[in-house]
Amino acid sequence: MTPLRVTVWNENRHEKTNAAVQKVYPEGMHSVIAKSLAEQGFTVGTATLDEPEHGLTADVLAQTDVLTWWGHVAHGDVKDEVVERVHQRVLEGMGLVVLHSGHFSKIFKKLMGTTCDLKWREAGEKERIWVVEPGHPIAEGLDEYFEIEHEEMYGERFDIPAPDTLVLLSWFKGGEVFRSGCCYHRGKGKVFYFRPGHETYPTYYQAEVQRVIANGVRWAAPSGIESVTFGHRPQPLEPLG
Amino acid sequence: MTPLRVTVWNENRHEKTNAAVQKVYPEGMHSVIAKSLAEQGFTVGTATLDEPEHGLTADVLAQTDVLTWWGHVAHGDVKDEVVERVHQRVLEGMGLVVLHSGHFSKIFKKLMGTTCDLKWREAGEKERIWVVEPGHPIAEGLDEYFEIEHEEMYGERFDIPAPDTLVLLSWFKGGEVFRSGCCYHRGKGKVFYFRPGHETYPTYYQAEVQRVIANGVRWAAPSGIESVTFGHRPQPLEPLG
Amino acid sequence: MTPLRVTVWNENRHEKTNAAVQKVYPEGMHSVIAKSLAEQGFTVGTATLDEPEHGLTADVLAQTDVLTWWGHVAHGDVKDEVVERVHQRVLEGMGLVVLHSGHFSKIFKKLMGTTCDLKWREAGEKERIWVVEPGHPIAEGLDEYFEIEHEEMYGERFDIPAPDTLVLLSWFKGGEVFRSGCCYHRGKGKVFYFRPGHETYPTYYQAEVQRVIANGVRWAAPSGIESVTFGHRPQPLEPLG
Amino acid sequence: MTPLRVTVWNENRHEKTNAAVQKVYPEGMHSVIAKSLAEQGFTVGTATLDEPEHGLTADVLAQTDVLTWWGHVAHGDVKDEVVERVHQRVLEGMGLVVLHSGHFSKIFKKLMGTTCDLKWREAGEKERIWVVEPGHPIAEGLDEYFEIEHEEMYGERFDIPAPDTLVLLSWFKGGEVFRSGCCYHRGKGKVFYFRPGHETYPTYYQAEVQRVIANGVRWAAPSGIESVTFGHRPQPLEPLG
Repeated sequence: MTPLRVTVWNENRHEKTNAAVQKVYPEGMHSVIAKSLAEQGFTVGTATLDEPEHGLTADVLAQTDVLTWWGHVAHGDVKDEVVERVHQRVLEGMGLVVLHSGHFSKIFKKLMGTTCDLKWREAGEKERIWVVEPGHPIAEGLDEYFEIEHEEMYGERFDIPAPDTLVLLSWFKGGEVFRSGCCYHRGKGKVFYFRPGHETYPTYYQAEVQRVIANGVRWAAPSGIESVTFGHRPQPLEPLG
Repeated sequence: MTPLRVTVWNENRHEKTNAAVQKVYPEGMHSVIAKSLAEQGFTVGTATLDEPEHGLTADVLAQTDVLTWWGHVAHGDVKDEVVERVHQRVLEGMGLVVLHSGHFSKIFKKLMGTTCDLKWREAGEKERIWVVEPGHPIAEGLDEYFEIEHEEMYGERFDIPAPDTLVLLSWFKGGEVFRSGCCYHRGKGKVFYFRPGHETYPTYYQAEVQRVIANGVRWAAPSGIESVTFGHRPQPLEPLG
Repeated sequence: MTPLRVTVWNENRHEKTNAAVQKVYPEGMHSVIAKSLAEQGFTVGTATLDEPEHGLTADVLAQTDVLTWWGHVAHGDVKDEVVERVHQRVLEGMGLVVLHSGHFSKIFKKLMGTTCDLKWREAGEKERIWVVEPGHPIAEGLDEYFEIEHEEMYGERFDIPAPDTLVLLSWFKGGEVFRSGCCYHRGKGKVFYFRPGHETYPTYYQAEVQRVIANGVRWAAPSGIESVTFGHRPQPLEPLG
Repeated sequence: MTPLRVTVWNENRHEKTNAAVQKVYPEGMHSVIAKSLAEQGFTVGTATLDEPEHGLTADVLAQTDVLTWWGHVAHGDVKDEVVERVHQRVLEGMGLVVLHSGHFSKIFKKLMGTTCDLKWREAGEKERIWVVEPGHPIAEGLDEYFEIEHEEMYGERFDIPAPDTLVLLSWFKGGEVFRSGCCYHRGKGKVFYFRPGHETYPTYYQAEVQRVIANGVRWAAPSGIESVTFGHRPQPLEPLG
């Protein structure tokens, strides 16, 4: 089987300006995510905000089976035409794995139709992620829960449409809960939102987190019918009599 | 109990230019829908595209519990700022009942995040609408199915997110099927899509259709918690220890 | 409008044998739940395990719009024929509100098709219940969350089918999360599972808990089409020719 | 990758007594289904009602990744202890693909919690099966619809819980519609119901039908976490303070 082709997209701004982030991710968060995916058998490329067309040319997207997305401080800098292009590709079947603060990206909000807002706190508190749909392929290889020692808190109400399948739920030390692993069909594409990954913590080095992202990529891979057609059907399939 | 306040929105363009439509709906489709809702106990107003702000001022929306929406040839003429205003109100809790060709309205596409495209044929063929969730309040007072003698065909693939609840399914004489009664939560609001209602047929005079719209309005009425808050929560609810 | 007729069912065994429970619920948990529902405008009856036919005769069930169910130590004593009768009535449209340890009742397991098992701990710890679907009628009148100072912990994996609508999520001090307010359509009936209510705590005296139960009763009330028919349809609705 | 191990279960009674069925399926429906699955790369065994323990010993089930089920006239002859065994295995993660009249099997009804009843007509009419979730792996390789020239009609209301994912919808010449491809998570297992396959028609020889069954098997294959645990957790994961 040909390996899935993944493009890891990263805003990559914190890494340029924030020493704390540089220390954790000296080559950018995308490098760590990409390396982990490559080790798990995918064909991986990266793209970042400050590249021409944010690295997401029509050609790159055409050769991408699944796109992962991390953004935070510069959602507004992502050009609408690139968002349209990604949106179109998702509806055509490309998978999309949205990470952490990507909840507020233009592309995720556009696909969800809601504000995608939430409650948050940056206190380096413990997060415990529980599997609530244990037979789902995104839970493959996990235990019943795993912990991230220090993370940013995201709390409900998370203003998203109810996921088609809810796979993971987070518990936070400070008292909140969060729907942390959410699966959606949108058009012919599949979207997986996965919560963890604040830029100042080494979250993307953690084995369980890497495993969930890889599982999410596999789940979101293109599948189904070749293409969908729409529009005028003047000729009935059956006589109208 | 105070009656629900419904605003019936209509593009109202076909009625001005097309003699066939004028004959069926001499005072506009909105009049027929509004009259039916008033008779079923709602407090009803109407609004149309060519009114200032399309009749959907902030004030009108603030006093609307549920908005119904019919549009077709002039989706593009609906101003983006009005779409934003309606979107905001839905997320705050206002109900929205989208009718027929409203599937292609800016507001419905924005709430769904997909193209909302479909297959269609205008051949006046028979539609039979089956109840698939018989205990749902939107099915109240219906039989197991009802028929519309002459309607436009809409066929799958209907490019929408899978509904939270699928209540009605259509069979068409010419060979297609369609998810015709679809319920969604979006933000604090509820959205109901109901398929029938081509402008050249007297569909909105039919008792079952009027019943479904009224049931949809009741289902979509504001409910739940007072308001939702988002954003920074520097103070944990529990000690981080 | 005629008030909804609710039958509050209680195992009522702990109350007879356990002094701690007697102290909290001297007249049985059912009395407290029934009183609260009566005050909120319902017509309420009660039924308990040790009554003939567990108080759930065909006649009682025929006059019940919504049944609430609390059981714990004596699930096995509930006669299968009564379970069948309740099951049949739910499929015909009677609402069912299953409380706390009722997760392991024969009727809930039969309706779910799974083990309905979970993790639990009796340590009187704090539970914080978050609203995740803020526009749902079962959340009416709540704040974004409410707390129960001392409760038994129930933790995921809760072995249920994914709810049609997930309304409430619990956070527990000891580190677990739980899907605490779960809505299901089953047949023409509606089922609401609500987590709190361990027998040694005064949970059913708490205003928010009483409110959720009342909201659940209203949501689960019979609605939809008169009746559903099944079986042989030798005559096609359309000519096969 | 090790091929998935599929056990094709068939009631195999019509084939012994009905000349019309014998003509279509001289070696039993299970042979045709098994042959098709073997050709599509699975390791396939068969089991039938009249074998000891219906061919479904604990050992056979332990070595089965996905079980397919066809039954019709002899649902009542399936021993409850075998049903329990299969149920247990599904909840542990074994996939189950339920075919056609298997909707009334003990195992499917037990997993669904409802009557699983429907409307039916044996008139050899045309069925057209539409893909409504085009990006789902069960739709892989299909066109937007396919037709079965002669089939038994199954019509709504199909008394099942709303599927987690609805993939296929049927249109019938005689005027009915049906949810024909339904996906469920139950416990750690996955269940796929697929409608076609009346015993007197050569449905299981048709390429599209074979493809859907194979896709269903792949989708239902065991995945997710190793095992789920339940019960007493006296020790909190976090200090109760």
